[in-house]
Amino acid sequence: MALLVVGSVAYDALESPYGKVDRTLGGAATYFAVAARFFTPVSLVAIVGDDFSEKDEAVFRSRAIDIEGLERAPGKCFFWAGRYSENLNDRVTLTTDLNVFAEFKPRLPEKYRSSKYVFLANIAPDLQRDVLHQVKGKPKLAAMDTMNYWIERSNAELRETLKHVDILMINDSETRQLSSEHNLLRAARSIFKMGPSTLVVKRGEYGAMLVDKHGVFCVPAFPLEEPHDPTGAGDSFAGGFMGYLAGSGGSNDAALRRAMVYGSVMGSFAVEKFGLERLLHLKKSEIHARARHFSKLTQFKL
Amino acid sequence: MALLVVGSVAYDALESPYGKVDRTLGGAATYFAVAARFFTPVSLVAIVGDDFSEKDEAVFRSRAIDIEGLERAPGKCFFWAGRYSENLNDRVTLTTDLNVFAEFKPRLPEKYRSSKYVFLANIAPDLQRDVLHQVKGKPKLAAMDTMNYWIERSNAELRETLKHVDILMINDSETRQLSSEHNLLRAARSIFKMGPSTLVVKRGEYGAMLVDKHGVFCVPAFPLEEPHDPTGAGDSFAGGFMGYLAGSGGSNDAALRRAMVYGSVMGSFAVEKFGLERLLHLKKSEIHARARHFSKLTQFKL
Repeated sequence: MALLVVGSVAYDALESPYGKVDRTLGGAATYFAVAARFFTPVSLVAIVGDDFSEKDEAVFRSRAIDIEGLERAPGKCFFWAGRYSENLNDRVTLTTDLNVFAEFKPRLPEKYRSSKYVFLANIAPDLQRDVLHQVKGKPKLAAMDTMNYWIERSNAELRETLKHVDILMINDSETRQLSSEHNLLRAARSIFKMGPSTLVVKRGEYGAMLVDKHGVFCVPAFPLEEPHDPTGAGDSFAGGFMGYLAGSGGSNDAALRRAMVYGSVMGSFAVEKFGLERLLHLKKSEIHARARHFSKLTQFKL
Repeated sequence: MALLVVGSVAYDALESPYGKVDRTLGGAATYFAVAARFFTPVSLVAIVGDDFSEKDEAVFRSRAIDIEGLERAPGKCFFWAGRYSENLNDRVTLTTDLNVFAEFKPRLPEKYRSSKYVFLANIAPDLQRDVLHQVKGKPKLAAMDTMNYWIERSNAELRETLKHVDILMINDSETRQLSSEHNLLRAARSIFKMGPSTLVVKRGEYGAMLVDKHGVFCVPAFPLEEPHDPTGAGDSFAGGFMGYLAGSGGSNDAALRRAMVYGSVMGSFAVEKFGLERLLHLKKSEIHARARHFSKLTQFKL
């Protein structure tokens, strides 16, 4: 089933010990869409400026990612520049130019309004809610990301949006900040009271953890000898996760576990090379092979 | 098969947000022996002072842990006092009194010398090697722990000892320090060149990771809502891990995976209450139930 994503399409400048790129296609919605497209049709809502290139538009078109919802505005695309530390564990933001993104008011084309799977990438909580309101009826599954900026500065708006989503997908420090609980189980219980029935905690090199009424499911990060660039790993995880669920139509415990694995698979590919590069050259057979590798990584018989 | 452990038997003073104890039986060899004893007979080599109480001796005797190798010396037992932070993530050492431990020269009783499974808890590397030399022939499996102190101050001794063990079981910062590699796969490759064929990395709240020629196996930490005291978690992990292997006699890939699970099970129980308390009141049925719970926590079908 078609999966709707709203979020940023941006240009990134990236530096890590493994290299440097001055201007490469990025943004949460981009990583999400490219990762999810391996599993299901994807419709994208975002905004770009008049510097958005045909070559980058072709990234979406060549994959049949629906960009009818990609608004063109006068001005420049969202631009982010960041530098990663030696171990890729820390990053500093060098530049954030919102540009056209500052005026983003997501508008869903009519055909997007019947979407059953919706992912609200990290944008202002009121915009996330506005997107949900434009969807007809209740989606089968609505998931969202957010970040410390919104937790601190738009907490009331964020709380209102949380009431309307099924899955919250954030990292561990965001989980702790939002819930004011250090312990992740207690944090999950606190977050369930805000609306979501499922919490997915992204833990970077330590993998990811899903908590819901069935309990807890953990998946490690795929061990890589030379990750190059963590940019987009979390969004690629979300794309694999939601893409798998939308593509399979399932949402029971077994399906959520597989979604966690496919999310981790896509996140692990994303970090192997700079920017989108690895995802753009990825084959379906590699995805399935890596998912089987996750079995080897975690499975045991008592 | 009988499992030999050499290490510290100590008194600990512990403070955490959950409480405080002034003087409780502790030490790496104690946690290890009590945890391992659920799986296999255990022989202990350590040293205590004349303040070692009958009540604490009974902890070993009542479990039929062989303490013929527990030397009594004039003076006081090793004493350690520490305080944990709010989230139990950090600790400060308040006191370390080596006392009789400063003169510890491990001597194996004759009947210990045929041990096939040996665990060298965290003591000076030359003493660890001396214990191995007293074992007749090559043990079926020799494993060891160490710490930053020995990596920094007795590096050459440590390297010599590493040549003689099969499994090195340390935490992630020790792994990085010993190998001078941040990436754990590269660290493992570097450590394999030092002697061990298997590396077990203990990662605290993130679980544990085993690396050997078969690849990588990861197990998460058991999610607990209220861990009380992390003291002894790593030694209990080691006790469950080595205890399972010695008890089952296996050492193939499937056995090592189960050992990782039983190690994690014992580590998770250890932190539930203060000091040894939870392990001393633990039932075998609880161990097996929690191991099955680890399946729920990690297993999926593609």
